[in-house]
Amino acid sequence: MRRITGLSNPTVKSLRALRDKKHRRRERRFLAEGLRLLTDARETGHLPAMLAMAEGRERHPLLDALIADVEAADGDVVELSEAALAKITGKDNPQAVCGVFEEFDTALSGIDRKSAPLFLVAQAMRDPGNLGTMLRTADAVGAGGVILIDDCADPFSVEAVRASMGAIFTVPLAQARWEEFRDWLRSGAGQLVAASLRESHDYRKAPYAAPCFVMVGNESRGLPEDYEAECDLRVHMPMLGRADSLNAAVAAAVLGYEVLAAVG
Amino acid sequence: MRRITGLSNPTVKSLRALRDKKHRRRERRFLAEGLRLLTDARETGHLPAMLAMAEGRERHPLLDALIADVEAADGDVVELSEAALAKITGKDNPQAVCGVFEEFDTALSGIDRKSAPLFLVAQAMRDPGNLGTMLRTADAVGAGGVILIDDCADPFSVEAVRASMGAIFTVPLAQARWEEFRDWLRSGAGQLVAASLRESHDYRKAPYAAPCFVMVGNESRGLPEDYEAECDLRVHMPMLGRADSLNAAVAAAVLGYEVLAAVG
Repeated sequence: MRRITGLSNPTVKSLRALRDKKHRRRERRFLAEGLRLLTDARETGHLPAMLAMAEGRERHPLLDALIADVEAADGDVVELSEAALAKITGKDNPQAVCGVFEEFDTALSGIDRKSAPLFLVAQAMRDPGNLGTMLRTADAVGAGGVILIDDCADPFSVEAVRASMGAIFTVPLAQARWEEFRDWLRSGAGQLVAASLRESHDYRKAPYAAPCFVMVGNESRGLPEDYEAECDLRVHMPMLGRADSLNAAVAAAVLGYEVLAAVG
Repeated sequence: MRRITGLSNPTVKSLRALRDKKHRRRERRFLAEGLRLLTDARETGHLPAMLAMAEGRERHPLLDALIADVEAADGDVVELSEAALAKITGKDNPQAVCGVFEEFDTALSGIDRKSAPLFLVAQAMRDPGNLGTMLRTADAVGAGGVILIDDCADPFSVEAVRASMGAIFTVPLAQARWEEFRDWLRSGAGQLVAASLRESHDYRKAPYAAPCFVMVGNESRGLPEDYEAECDLRVHMPMLGRADSLNAAVAAAVLGYEVLAAVG
């Protein structure tokens, strides 16, 4: 363990910078915050390259275990002042702890369509909280992965990682342009399904088939028409009120659980 | 329409202050931002007491209609500098517009259990985004209302209002302590249902009965044991991955849609 003093120390600056997408892109590393999340990571075989915590913290057996594992793996364990840690995490919490992880490869080739009966697909999902929530749902429904199409929020942002509740470490993740995804999908078995207001099946009685790819669109615009047209199945969910859409992460979950019941 | 100049004008200050819960509590007024949200409000018969927008904005027919209606109802329409508006909304968007509304009454007596087959109940839900999303889902499933138990996030916060996508104006909303809610519930017909890890029914085959009250708990702690024990029905949803819970707004939606299919 090493001690770092001062707020302008290069390590503090570089950790702080990982809150910015630009820096993450360049460094290909990301931050995960909180003992619970870091413990989830550890339990799934992911140790941070660097672990940072405040000097004045209370001891905790899970934190001790984490420190021991990171040190055993030749990782970097650093102690900072509370002020320096607050600068990194943006939170005034002396119990805070954060870890720096290498980004995972997110090529489509990492997705195995034979590994599960369903997959979740998000198109241009802009809200990192929604994106993390979708990863969390994917874990719950046993999805074989989450595929991010076009310009989605960064799944390695602090907000998305937090909302994923650890699923960022366990759910296979891919990022691709639409054309690339479509070509990959059509190169093997796979049913592409989307919720739609256009002519479509009742989502409770639709002929889902594994491997089923459940796709939801952008928060404001929904799916582009030509993407919807490419789907093998368009389903509609009851919308009994004034609004004509659900929150995107909610739509993915309601449809995901329905598909799980049908083909899981 | 009146013009306001300067950043320290009392109107600007009082609008800015509505982002704070303390001030909202005292004033019993809340902010809603964006033309879409304000138009939703107008279309459901809710006009702001005050409407504020930037001087340099572009004209828009929906905004013109809104201004006309607010003025016809003797509301206050104000034009501000872009800087003053940015101070209020926290956003650098000269097209921004915001309205100030009177808070609604949120007594339990405003909920009519005969009005719908299902209702959503949140206990100690702390995230305003989750809370707004739940309101939005309640609109979609045709719920007769959302009931907030114990210390929930403020449904009138800017974040909750935004996430509700207008449902704050259309879905009946109540706030109550647990004991008060329980007494009210037991004074008439009503089945209380919660997702649970304890001995419980498969959520796809459970004997739901209208009016059904679907309850979800706090984001970190879930429902207190004694609240769960008070439920008429405990159901479990598949959790096939590492995690043992869903995002609270997601859980409410998956269960809400299931109940809708059974009793709707």
